[in-house]
Amino acid sequence: MISQNVNMTETFATRFTAVRSKFGPLVWGLDPSRSLLDAWRLGDTSDGLDRFADIVLEAASGTVGLVKPQSAFYERHGWRGIRTLQRLIGDAQSAGLLVIVDAKRGDFGNTNDAYAEAYLGAGAPLGADALTVHPYLGLGAMGTFVSRADEAGSCLLVVIRSSNPEGRMVQSATDQAGRTVEEALLAEIGDLNVRLAPGEIGPIGAVIGPTHTHPALNLVAAQGLFLAPGVGMQGATAGDVAEVFAACPERVMPSASRSLLVDGPDVSRLRDTAGRLAGEFRELLRAP
Amino acid sequence: MISQNVNMTETFATRFTAVRSKFGPLVWGLDPSRSLLDAWRLGDTSDGLDRFADIVLEAASGTVGLVKPQSAFYERHGWRGIRTLQRLIGDAQSAGLLVIVDAKRGDFGNTNDAYAEAYLGAGAPLGADALTVHPYLGLGAMGTFVSRADEAGSCLLVVIRSSNPEGRMVQSATDQAGRTVEEALLAEIGDLNVRLAPGEIGPIGAVIGPTHTHPALNLVAAQGLFLAPGVGMQGATAGDVAEVFAACPERVMPSASRSLLVDGPDVSRLRDTAGRLAGEFRELLRAP
Repeated sequence: MISQNVNMTETFATRFTAVRSKFGPLVWGLDPSRSLLDAWRLGDTSDGLDRFADIVLEAASGTVGLVKPQSAFYERHGWRGIRTLQRLIGDAQSAGLLVIVDAKRGDFGNTNDAYAEAYLGAGAPLGADALTVHPYLGLGAMGTFVSRADEAGSCLLVVIRSSNPEGRMVQSATDQAGRTVEEALLAEIGDLNVRLAPGEIGPIGAVIGPTHTHPALNLVAAQGLFLAPGVGMQGATAGDVAEVFAACPERVMPSASRSLLVDGPDVSRLRDTAGRLAGEFRELLRAP
Repeated sequence: MISQNVNMTETFATRFTAVRSKFGPLVWGLDPSRSLLDAWRLGDTSDGLDRFADIVLEAASGTVGLVKPQSAFYERHGWRGIRTLQRLIGDAQSAGLLVIVDAKRGDFGNTNDAYAEAYLGAGAPLGADALTVHPYLGLGAMGTFVSRADEAGSCLLVVIRSSNPEGRMVQSATDQAGRTVEEALLAEIGDLNVRLAPGEIGPIGAVIGPTHTHPALNLVAAQGLFLAPGVGMQGATAGDVAEVFAACPERVMPSASRSLLVDGPDVSRLRDTAGRLAGEFRELLRAP
């Protein structure tokens, strides 16, 4: 398949390294909850959502390297909300931002093919630089997600360890070989990346919540990037992120949302807050 | 909360029983894949998707009791596809059909609140009678999904055992008490339903793929409805469904998609095929 976008010929890892050296690794989570739209006095409507998108695009461009819209907050406004999300993705990419769509999609068979076609690669209407997926129906069912991410130079971010406590039962259950679900899935990711990008950072990454520090996972062997959500309001500090990913700090994309958006809707205050945290993470997460 | 829709004061289980006695329990899966839109000569575009919706609405009304659009196939067309999905949901409900949106959403915290507000209860733009969710981040994180389903008389369908083979590692892993993930989650559903609807069928159901017959699950104790996908093309027969759910056949909603849609786009042929399978399931899945 010929990629329609020249930028897409670089891998996501290469593009991440570039924006990281310029702005730091911080991912700005764009989560326009009802309470946020109210606090910003935009109104909890699709028009308010559109104005939110304008404000955060202006604040994020030139301030951070990556943004992460959370699909749920756009789906709340039905098709008009998805129209805003689609515009936001395109405008952010035009401004040089890498866009991670946090949608935690996942199914199998031709349903997964359809999700992959919606979010990854050439012609995808909601074409993201990276997409989060959940593995409850199996990583082995994600063939088209994997191949489209690989071909388009995008990234598939599989939720392995979420930052909330309620997910521990499933994620820490053990398979027949005695490995936990999260260990076994992380090993599968490593196998995929070794095959797709020998000796490099591959296109399959993992979401690892830094709020859980034990048991430790073999992160280096996954040979992928990590999205570390939950910095700030969800309870993890920048220091927690540095500790959890001490073995491969340069592979981490820490994300914060509410702790940054609380300073809006004033654009210069938003820029100051996000720029400060991005700089803090640039210092903390240096290659060893 | 006062429900905006008078029909919503009945529980989903009550409404299912009503459509079941009239049309049988069959759920018609509305999966407009690229290959289907091509085969029907509608074109793989948002306009083609709109025409697909018109055709299946005409064929399903008065033929079956439930339809299940799979969100991925609408997301493939971006916001225009979601506009079609939103119209399809409303038109199907106006025609008396119960609508299960198969989206397998799932997250935690205020993200789950936002998904619940998108798909369940009063004011939801994509308001479904039932919604599928995945439990990788934990059932305990689904408070708003559960409360909105309960209050609105809708149904939350948690994927417990998927019909594909790749999901077995996660779903059959064992927790600290030695129960499999699917057993533990099914028990949690039972606890919720007993609390929310003592002695009745509660608002939390489960997706159980009938392609896996072992190990057996304690289905009766869940006190909920079951969506049994994968009849036809995915390899399960009507007999498999009857066998897996022998202990509570009247609680099962078997779904088929490709094996029905293959007879389109001719509306009368679609009606014949779906009506025949619906009648077959009505005979097979009688209360013991």
